[in-house]
Amino acid sequence: YCHSGAGEPFVPFDVLVNQRRNEARRSLLVEVAGLPSSTDLHQVCSQYGAVRKMFHYTTRHSNVNKEMILVEFDEAESLEKALQATRSPPTERIIPVHSPFVWLSASRTASSNRKKTNISSTTDIIQETVPSNEELQLQLSQSRDLSEQIQKSYECQKLTELGSRLRFFTCRQVEVALSGLFPQACVLPFGSSVNSFGRINCDLDMILELFDVTNQDTTQRLVFQAKKSRSAANPRITMQRHMEVISDILDNFVPGCSQVRKILAARVPIIKYRQDLTDMECDLSMANRSGFYMSEMLYLYGSMDKRVRPLVFAIRKWAKDRHVTSPYAGRWVTNFSLTLLVLFYLMRTSPPVIPPLQMLIKLAGDDDVRTAESINCTFLRDLKILTASDNKQSLEDLLRGFYEFYDKFDFKERGLSVVRGDDFVKPEHNALYIQNPLERELNVSRNVTLEELERLRSEITHARYRLEEDTEHIEEQQGQQPWGLLSLWGASHKPQAHRGLN
Amino acid sequence: YCHSGAGEPFVPFDVLVNQRRNEARRSLLVEVAGLPSSTDLHQVCSQYGAVRKMFHYTTRHSNVNKEMILVEFDEAESLEKALQATRSPPTERIIPVHSPFVWLSASRTASSNRKKTNISSTTDIIQETVPSNEELQLQLSQSRDLSEQIQKSYECQKLTELGSRLRFFTCRQVEVALSGLFPQACVLPFGSSVNSFGRINCDLDMILELFDVTNQDTTQRLVFQAKKSRSAANPRITMQRHMEVISDILDNFVPGCSQVRKILAARVPIIKYRQDLTDMECDLSMANRSGFYMSEMLYLYGSMDKRVRPLVFAIRKWAKDRHVTSPYAGRWVTNFSLTLLVLFYLMRTSPPVIPPLQMLIKLAGDDDVRTAESINCTFLRDLKILTASDNKQSLEDLLRGFYEFYDKFDFKERGLSVVRGDDFVKPEHNALYIQNPLERELNVSRNVTLEELERLRSEITHARYRLEEDTEHIEEQQGQQPWGLLSLWGASHKPQAHRGLN
Ligand SMILES: Nc1nc2c(ncn2[C@@H]2O[C@H](COP(=O)(O)OP(=O)(O)OP(=O)(O)O)[C@@H](O)[C@H]2O)c(=O)[nH]1
Ligand SMILES: Nc1nc2c(ncn2[C@@H]2O[C@H](COP(=O)(O)OP(=O)(O)OP(=O)(O)O)[C@@H](O)[C@H]2O)c(=O)[nH]1
Ligand SMILES: [Mg+2]
Ligand SMILES: [Mg+2]
Repeated sequence: YCHSGAGEPFVPFDVLVNQRRNEARRSLLVEVAGLPSSTDLHQVCSQYGAVRKMFHYTTRHSNVNKEMILVEFDEAESLEKALQATRSPPTERIIPVHSPFVWLSASRTASSNRKKTNISSTTDIIQETVPSNEELQLQLSQSRDLSEQIQKSYECQKLTELGSRLRFFTCRQVEVALSGLFPQACVLPFGSSVNSFGRINCDLDMILELFDVTNQDTTQRLVFQAKKSRSAANPRITMQRHMEVISDILDNFVPGCSQVRKILAARVPIIKYRQDLTDMECDLSMANRSGFYMSEMLYLYGSMDKRVRPLVFAIRKWAKDRHVTSPYAGRWVTNFSLTLLVLFYLMRTSPPVIPPLQMLIKLAGDDDVRTAESINCTFLRDLKILTASDNKQSLEDLLRGFYEFYDKFDFKERGLSVVRGDDFVKPEHNALYIQNPLERELNVSRNVTLEELERLRSEITHARYRLEEDTEHIEEQQGQQPWGLLSLWGASHKPQAHRGLN
Repeated sequence: YCHSGAGEPFVPFDVLVNQRRNEARRSLLVEVAGLPSSTDLHQVCSQYGAVRKMFHYTTRHSNVNKEMILVEFDEAESLEKALQATRSPPTERIIPVHSPFVWLSASRTASSNRKKTNISSTTDIIQETVPSNEELQLQLSQSRDLSEQIQKSYECQKLTELGSRLRFFTCRQVEVALSGLFPQACVLPFGSSVNSFGRINCDLDMILELFDVTNQDTTQRLVFQAKKSRSAANPRITMQRHMEVISDILDNFVPGCSQVRKILAARVPIIKYRQDLTDMECDLSMANRSGFYMSEMLYLYGSMDKRVRPLVFAIRKWAKDRHVTSPYAGRWVTNFSLTLLVLFYLMRTSPPVIPPLQMLIKLAGDDDVRTAESINCTFLRDLKILTASDNKQSLEDLLRGFYEFYDKFDFKERGLSVVRGDDFVKPEHNALYIQNPLERELNVSRNVTLEELERLRSEITHARYRLEEDTEHIEEQQGQQPWGLLSLWGASHKPQAHRGLN
């Protein structure tokens, strides 16, 4: 196994997260009248310090397009200066909250500014182009083979640079909103936003930690006064009360937050909202650092071999199009469970593409020790010491292999463990048993009903035969009928079934 | 009229308020094990910068005494450093909020620190001594005359230096709590906490302004994104929603805030709470800057002549003891109305002790222009240009004069105006009509019923005759029976009637 297997140099998760958080601390999101304002904006921002990068995007909300520019300054101090100079909107009917979400008002001396346009900015504005569904289908239909399709599909649909920045920036807004009460408040993305399996428009899962438990110097004599929680005996109730207040803050004060809902009775209580200005669905939870480490684990598996991410993408997309998964929680398989299925399969190829988690645990050093919510989350974090896999299968072979593997798998009797990389006799009678890699006595697919498992299995069988048919008739089909991923997805068959979600 | 009439050099209200706010920004409130810890605390604090002053006091709450020390640093930066080094309490069951309310934990190296005690602090700890009710009564009974009683009573009961600091500090805590969302948030005390008529334990009235409307540079191109209020058409409903969230923040997170109640249907919606650590009852309102200017006006009248404050105190205390006023809002006269009655009377003595408000309005300069909530609050702020009153009456004469004046006043037909310093035909049929000095079409005593007015009048008559009896039998009484203020207050007659409030 080798880190370089992913094609790019390996960046440890912590390094990546810190870099993104730092970018977010230096960034300002500005609504502008249109792209031509970017020169103007660059000029305005440069008053406060050097501008490093500018990204443009458009959001569409209630039939109104908003032109947005994410500005990254060189220095966090420049952002502070800019925000200090930022004024409140003129009308009294709105709530002028301090946040790095701003708006560029029209210049009063528009004509004189126009002239300066030639002096021009040295920062080019970055505009990411994401192929439309049609473009993607065209590209896939013109691919050489299924492996190329899988690779292209991944590259077109993976989270972009801007997408990733906006996610950390959306987290930052919540931190800033709470900073008066909790200056150490830390909001971190987890789930598909950072586990490297996230699609362009995936939702944003966040954990909020009000203070930094790890960084407490107990020799300090001064200690903050604190409120005794009214339900001190039940930390969960305390957390729910906090989340209620935080959700009201988001709902009433924080710009762009809409459709704020509290789902506090869930196993992991969450606040759901839409951030209209960065255009994403957000799930905010607390006391869920183990979820963050779970995402780190998935990120590590994605980094271990360059075939992992494209393969997971292809399978997640297939499952979505075939309604095996759904954006709504329910009786069906989640993307998380599905990802574990793919990882488990990749541990069982011969030779294996990736090692079982217990190997990463065995290799963990002192720096890798982590505990969260009393769950041991210790495993190797720096993949440089791993060697590359001996498995040389193509993406196509692996995809076919996946469907074959699970077509034959004895879900009825056997459970799967990515910890051991092995299956075992199910300890319970749930339809599907996938061991939680961190809380090993739990089944992450406990929610799946027998009916839904049967649907999954029949879709797997169906996919397996589709791909076999493909091979048999490859000459006839190419250029005429959808083949490969396109035939699997069924996208061209029933586009109306697309829910355009997740 | 002359500013120096108040005995002390005149400090403009704005200067006073800014000085107090700056002190609060440099102050830290520390709960300690006992007074001996103060040396220890001084040492701990001095790590972060020079300590200017330290005040000690004791609060008693649910049968537990807390020893508190208010530390004032020389520099605001020192406070910031101290708070940065402050740690969260160890248990997970409480909510560690960043605020300048802290606690000094026991030293781990207590013995070694003890030795250093001799090196000792250079800052003496200030302990204010406030005479008990019994001590005050003794002092008053031994006074030379009624004027001395009135003066002494004022000096013993007026708000102390520490009391005033703790009020601004309590305001500061709310500012800090909201600073993440509203870095410009400004919480100002008003009412008896700053109008110079406040007793030691008076409640704390506060106004909260979320952002600084006066300080908006409209040439700035960057404008904060803001939420459209859901009830944009009704600013009052918007304010009520904000107050709900703020009250939940206080209730759930802010140390020392207890018994948080929302009274949002009132004319001026308020959040009521107790700050246990500074030991005061708090009323927080929004959009009420005119209340602040009203307090400034009262402060100015208190500063104009040194007899005003002692006289107002004596009459407020009499009214409280005779149950003419009450700590609860209701059908009776408020301290505010009563104060206006005193001021009105002082405008009607001959020669007048204080000028009518219209004179202050006429003398106002450009710097004095203020508008709040569309109410014109412009009047002279710097009293230096006023000359002293020609009235030379003693406090005793003025007190007697007050009761005589209102014993004869035709409340039935006439209303009072401190603006014109004159009475006029009542425009409405309220029992008592005292024109609101800023909103002139309003009656500040509209709440008073005929029954309560009659009670006030009979208490006035009663007081008048008490004082006349006093004069007739002065020799027999002195040293034996309560006389002067003591006979007026009736404190010794029915101590059980004291409600120990307000
Ligand atoms: N322990 C545990 N963690 C879960 C479970 N489901 C989800 N998670 C964690 O929560 C994260 C976010 O959950 P989701 O938003 O449902 O999944 P996702 O990986 O972000 O994928 P999307 O469907 O693209 O959002 C996952 O990445 C897991 O780390 C579960 O059943 N058990
Ligand atoms: N316009 C108006 N303002 C009022 C009225 N009552 C009180 N205020 C203002 O609100 C301030 C605070 O009110 P209170 O707390 O009731 O009175 P106070 O002067 O602080 O006296 P205490 O009884 O010691 O609290 C007053 O000083 C006035 O400025 C009223 O009826 N009308
Ligand atoms: Mg997710
Ligand atoms: Mg008051």
